[in-house]
Amino acid sequence: LDKNVDLRTIAERTPGFSGADLSNLLNEAAILSARRDKKVIEQIDILDSVERVLLGPERKSHVLSEKEKKITAYHEAGHALIAHELPNTDPVQKVSIISRGQAAGYTLKLPVEDKHLHPRSEFIDELAVLLGGYMAEKQIFGEVTTGASNDLREATKLAKKIITQYGMDEKLGPRTFGEKEELIFLGKEIHEQKDYSEKTAEMIDQQITQLIKNAQETALEILTKKRKSLDKLVNELIKHETLERKAFEAIFKQKEK
Amino acid sequence: LDKNVDLRTIAERTPGFSGADLSNLLNEAAILSARRDKKVIEQIDILDSVERVLLGPERKSHVLSEKEKKITAYHEAGHALIAHELPNTDPVQKVSIISRGQAAGYTLKLPVEDKHLHPRSEFIDELAVLLGGYMAEKQIFGEVTTGASNDLREATKLAKKIITQYGMDEKLGPRTFGEKEELIFLGKEIHEQKDYSEKTAEMIDQQITQLIKNAQETALEILTKKRKSLDKLVNELIKHETLERKAFEAIFKQKEK
Amino acid sequence: LDKNVDLRTIAERTPGFSGADLSNLLNEAAILSARRDKKVIEQIDILDSVERVLLGPERKSHVLSEKEKKITAYHEAGHALIAHELPNTDPVQKVSIISRGQAAGYTLKLPVEDKHLHPRSEFIDELAVLLGGYMAEKQIFGEVTTGASNDLREATKLAKKIITQYGMDEKLGPRTFGEKEELIFLGKEIHEQKDYSEKTAEMIDQQITQLIKNAQETALEILTKKRKSLDKLVNELIKHETLERKAFEAIFKQKEK
Amino acid sequence: LDKNVDLRTIAERTPGFSGADLSNLLNEAAILSARRDKKVIEQIDILDSVERVLLGPERKSHVLSEKEKKITAYHEAGHALIAHELPNTDPVQKVSIISRGQAAGYTLKLPVEDKHLHPRSEFIDELAVLLGGYMAEKQIFGEVTTGASNDLREATKLAKKIITQYGMDEKLGPRTFGEKEELIFLGKEIHEQKDYSEKTAEMIDQQITQLIKNAQETALEILTKKRKSLDKLVNELIKHETLERKAFEAIFKQKEK
Amino acid sequence: LDKNVDLRTIAERTPGFSGADLSNLLNEAAILSARRDKKVIEQIDILDSVERVLLGPERKSHVLSEKEKKITAYHEAGHALIAHELPNTDPVQKVSIISRGQAAGYTLKLPVEDKHLHPRSEFIDELAVLLGGYMAEKQIFGEVTTGASNDLREATKLAKKIITQYGMDEKLGPRTFGEKEELIFLGKEIHEQKDYSEKTAEMIDQQITQLIKNAQETALEILTKKRKSLDKLVNELIKHETLERKAFEAIFKQKEK
Amino acid sequence: LDKNVDLRTIAERTPGFSGADLSNLLNEAAILSARRDKKVIEQIDILDSVERVLLGPERKSHVLSEKEKKITAYHEAGHALIAHELPNTDPVQKVSIISRGQAAGYTLKLPVEDKHLHPRSEFIDELAVLLGGYMAEKQIFGEVTTGASNDLREATKLAKKIITQYGMDEKLGPRTFGEKEELIFLGKEIHEQKDYSEKTAEMIDQQITQLIKNAQETALEILTKKRKSLDKLVNELIKHETLERKAFEAIFKQKEK
Repeated sequence: LDKNVDLRTIAERTPGFSGADLSNLLNEAAILSARRDKKVIEQIDILDSVERVLLGPERKSHVLSEKEKKITAYHEAGHALIAHELPNTDPVQKVSIISRGQAAGYTLKLPVEDKHLHPRSEFIDELAVLLGGYMAEKQIFGEVTTGASNDLREATKLAKKIITQYGMDEKLGPRTFGEKEELIFLGKEIHEQKDYSEKTAEMIDQQITQLIKNAQETALEILTKKRKSLDKLVNELIKHETLERKAFEAIFKQKEK
Repeated sequence: LDKNVDLRTIAERTPGFSGADLSNLLNEAAILSARRDKKVIEQIDILDSVERVLLGPERKSHVLSEKEKKITAYHEAGHALIAHELPNTDPVQKVSIISRGQAAGYTLKLPVEDKHLHPRSEFIDELAVLLGGYMAEKQIFGEVTTGASNDLREATKLAKKIITQYGMDEKLGPRTFGEKEELIFLGKEIHEQKDYSEKTAEMIDQQITQLIKNAQETALEILTKKRKSLDKLVNELIKHETLERKAFEAIFKQKEK
Repeated sequence: LDKNVDLRTIAERTPGFSGADLSNLLNEAAILSARRDKKVIEQIDILDSVERVLLGPERKSHVLSEKEKKITAYHEAGHALIAHELPNTDPVQKVSIISRGQAAGYTLKLPVEDKHLHPRSEFIDELAVLLGGYMAEKQIFGEVTTGASNDLREATKLAKKIITQYGMDEKLGPRTFGEKEELIFLGKEIHEQKDYSEKTAEMIDQQITQLIKNAQETALEILTKKRKSLDKLVNELIKHETLERKAFEAIFKQKEK
Repeated sequence: LDKNVDLRTIAERTPGFSGADLSNLLNEAAILSARRDKKVIEQIDILDSVERVLLGPERKSHVLSEKEKKITAYHEAGHALIAHELPNTDPVQKVSIISRGQAAGYTLKLPVEDKHLHPRSEFIDELAVLLGGYMAEKQIFGEVTTGASNDLREATKLAKKIITQYGMDEKLGPRTFGEKEELIFLGKEIHEQKDYSEKTAEMIDQQITQLIKNAQETALEILTKKRKSLDKLVNELIKHETLERKAFEAIFKQKEK
Repeated sequence: LDKNVDLRTIAERTPGFSGADLSNLLNEAAILSARRDKKVIEQIDILDSVERVLLGPERKSHVLSEKEKKITAYHEAGHALIAHELPNTDPVQKVSIISRGQAAGYTLKLPVEDKHLHPRSEFIDELAVLLGGYMAEKQIFGEVTTGASNDLREATKLAKKIITQYGMDEKLGPRTFGEKEELIFLGKEIHEQKDYSEKTAEMIDQQITQLIKNAQETALEILTKKRKSLDKLVNELIKHETLERKAFEAIFKQKEK
Repeated sequence: LDKNVDLRTIAERTPGFSGADLSNLLNEAAILSARRDKKVIEQIDILDSVERVLLGPERKSHVLSEKEKKITAYHEAGHALIAHELPNTDPVQKVSIISRGQAAGYTLKLPVEDKHLHPRSEFIDELAVLLGGYMAEKQIFGEVTTGASNDLREATKLAKKIITQYGMDEKLGPRTFGEKEELIFLGKEIHEQKDYSEKTAEMIDQQITQLIKNAQETALEILTKKRKSLDKLVNELIKHETLERKAFEAIFKQKEK
């Protein structure tokens, strides 16, 4: 292990990792540093391994066209900008337009410390972050692409949980909806039983849509007010493809000067 | 077995335990006292084993932040205060903000004697106790966290049973709704068949919501009236992490002086 | 077999028993009398075995509190009183507040002869008997307990059958609703297919509720008019725990004097 | 085979029997005549075997009370009378109040020749015959028993088929509803898929109810007009328990004189 | 193979037959001619085998009554007449009132050449042909029999496909409804998932009913206008039981003279 | 490999092909060229193999009638013309009226470069292309055939995805509907759970229909405006059966002159 390895940074990027996860991570890092012909494992090897573990391997072969690169840059910059501006979000560790797994780009956002309780405000801000990519595409290019599909699925799931599992919706009140049942046939299967009336289903639908609409407005407002930061972020992303936390935050400090 | 072991207290904390359960409990206590290098099993070993059996092992590694500790303290104090103030509840045996199993903290509340019949009033008070944590978070911090999720699930289930299994709702009357059927495929599975009309489903939904709303109001009223006791409880909990029955009740006696 | 065994009484208490059932019953009685160190099987051994076979073993360990005993006594006396007063019911053979199986107490009511046809009036009276325990609890204690849960399930099932299987409801007419289908997967499973419209489902729901409401009113009227008999029955039950048919009927004869 | 065996009568009572069925029937008859210590198979042995094959064995042990016998007699006489009076029904071969299989009594009604096409009018009359027992009970005793349950199920099924399979309902028109699908899991299972809208389901429900209501009226009218024949039939049934075709038809001839 | 065998006629009656099907057909024909003690396979052997393959074996034992024969004749003549009069139908090859498989009679109608595209008009005429038997029964006898059941099922299926699979309904437009999913459990099973709203289900129901109603009107109009041809056809059918294409067409030529 | 093989063209026609796919393709081409008695693999062998891999083998035996050929030509020309005229579509590589797999003809349309993000406008144009065959048939022949069935299924699926998976519908907003669940019984099975209310289902239905309606209008407008190109295309198709990209584009250039 290289002596310059900063364990604090690594700890910040691996919240929720168990001992086994961490040992597995170091193994990956060792393989990576070996592949890079190094004698010691360096900080960069470990950080790259963290992402590999969290998001899947980089897909360099997955080459984006110039137009797609620009869309992806605005999409990821959208996520990152909203995350940076809202108070109840985790700090952005990295923004990238290099494909990983299924995604064209990604924004890595990790909590500073382990959390066990999540307040409503955190979820509300998270919804705005999730909608950030979609709204940036819409604002800049006038139309959206399929690139936001996964964000929308996550946002819908989160909005549904806020309402049906966490009792955080004023209209539906502090109760739960939809009992999960595990069907132990041949595989693990969790099926949600609709244990409420059609009228309640309609109310849940309305409230999900309302939460998403609010998140859209929050995102749009920030994207409009901070348009300059957004453009700067996009330029940097297209130039460097990946921005680490320091480089990312520097962009905002520049502006402030 | 240490001669100071108070069997009465142990009996109070193990209602519904069968002979096999009790023998199993003493086994756990023996292992615990051995691990603690004792020659005899002491009262504390048995009591700790009771909780281990009921709630799962303590999770000391699960470290809460200062903010989370404060939220958890108000949450558990909320449960305990409501349980203490309402007439048809079991006495609070212990309140704690040490994580056990999935929960950030817990309030142990056990009946003085075995019960075979549960009157409606007991369930109505239990609903208020279940909502106590949620309402305390809302009242003190202005918003709730995911920590109440399990309480809400339990409250919803209980409210549903009051209406659909026990015939305790005036509007829906003394009948049952939803025949349980056991599906004996490969595992044990109990599936509830919706054997009533959509209109009835709506009425059930309304009445569940009404029961929960009433429980919220009861909880809020107590939390407001007894705010000083709540704060004192929280201070003690943050200081000691765990309050046994005596310490818990002392807080209220102090006040009365 | 003791020569004092009254085969007529035994026959009355075992309607619908097949030859195999009867032989099985005598076996149980032989075991019981042996356990009681008798050389012959006496009447009491056979009668006790009948109940064991029908209701499960007595649960003496299942000790009720004074309050629970009183609730149970009013509950069972409620059933027994309604059964005694209504014309189309079977005679009460025994009332007891000793726990058997899941029930806190029980009322044994058996037909004088085997029946193959059940008229509507018999079911209507049976509904009132089933609601008798619930209404007695409500009337005397102002609220009900979970003790009536099973009665309500039986009443709901019976009301549903009256309407959907026996064509005995004026509004829904002489037809059946809900085809039973046997699913022969791995166990025996009877699933009822909803083969009617939502509007019909609503009407069925309304009529079930109406039948139950009528039964409530019938029960309430008798409980109010015969309050003295009810209280006497309860006193006897608390004193003796179990009333056989003769003792039960004596209470009403006393009154008549 | 006894030389007096009338093959024509036997043919009339075995419509739809295949060669294998007939050979099977003769086997049953041979066993029966042997059990009756005969050297040849007589007409009566074959006829008894036909009923055994069609309806299950007689249940002599299944003894009806006087009241039940009277109800059963009116019930069966109801079926038989309606079948006799309506034009599009098969001739009544036998009426009986001896239990067979699940039924308290039975009315045997067989077509004179094999049929391959069934016109609407035949089904409409059959519905009235099926309702005949129910309406007779209602008319005579003021209330119905569970004895009509199976008739109502058959009537409901037939009414549904008239509407959904045979296109014989003016309102729903010449189309089918509900595709049958065979589920070939582990047993043979026919599941009907609801392939139409809720509104159509309501119309089907209304038309089934209408067909049954019409059948009720037809039955009631005949039972009222021919009350004397009904009573005579009942008297004969109670006296003889079983009426063969000749004896049955004689009752009506008497009247005509 | 007999030298008089007309391969053109055989080709016309076997559209869609693969090489294997044809070889199989000739095998059947060889067996048939052998059973008929011929040395060569004649035209008639092959044609009979075609029907055997398509419709199942003749059921001579299945004897119709005079009344049933008349109904069947009008039913089949109804199909054949409509098929002859409408422009977008395949030529009638044969009409018969000899039972085959489940059907009391049959009308064989085969395309002149293989088709790969089916226009809407072809389906609309086919619906009228399918309703032809039903409408003929209704028109002549005033009521319908169960004999039309299969036609109605086919007509309903076809009408549904026109609307939901082929986009040929103006109201529902050029889209599909109801995704088929193959359930590969233990047998082959195709289950149609209802992937549209209840309101759409209602519209589909209305349009199916409308298509059938139009087909009824078309059929009725032809049956009324060409009543003489219908009666002639029926007379010939009752006399000869089966009419081959030539004999069938001759009836219409006669009329024209 | 023949030296005249133009790798660029092959690359254009194989977007999304993996290394394994490409190696597999060359294998097919080698077999094809061998069957054609060539010593080297030529361009044409590879291109034919591409289509074989993508669309299934040609079905020369599947002979269309003159009328069907004309319908197919207008159908395919419809697709191709719309694809050529709209801005957000991939270039047409080939149009053919030779049957392949289930289809009577086909239009091969491939992207110039690999795409990872698909904007809404691309899908909107694709819907018009899919409807192009249907609208051409309707416009020219006054009615449609079953040949459009597969196009309509694809269009419906795409419209549904636009709305429920990609958040591209203004009315339903940026959220997803219908969680996919994998049922891992015995085969791979993806079942879509309806996790929204009936009212939402109705809105989804309306919006799908709206998208399709818009696509119809777009298609109709182009078909009307460019009727001459359409007719020319059809003439060429009937003459040559297949038009490669160059020949296809030449038709439009001619016109421009």
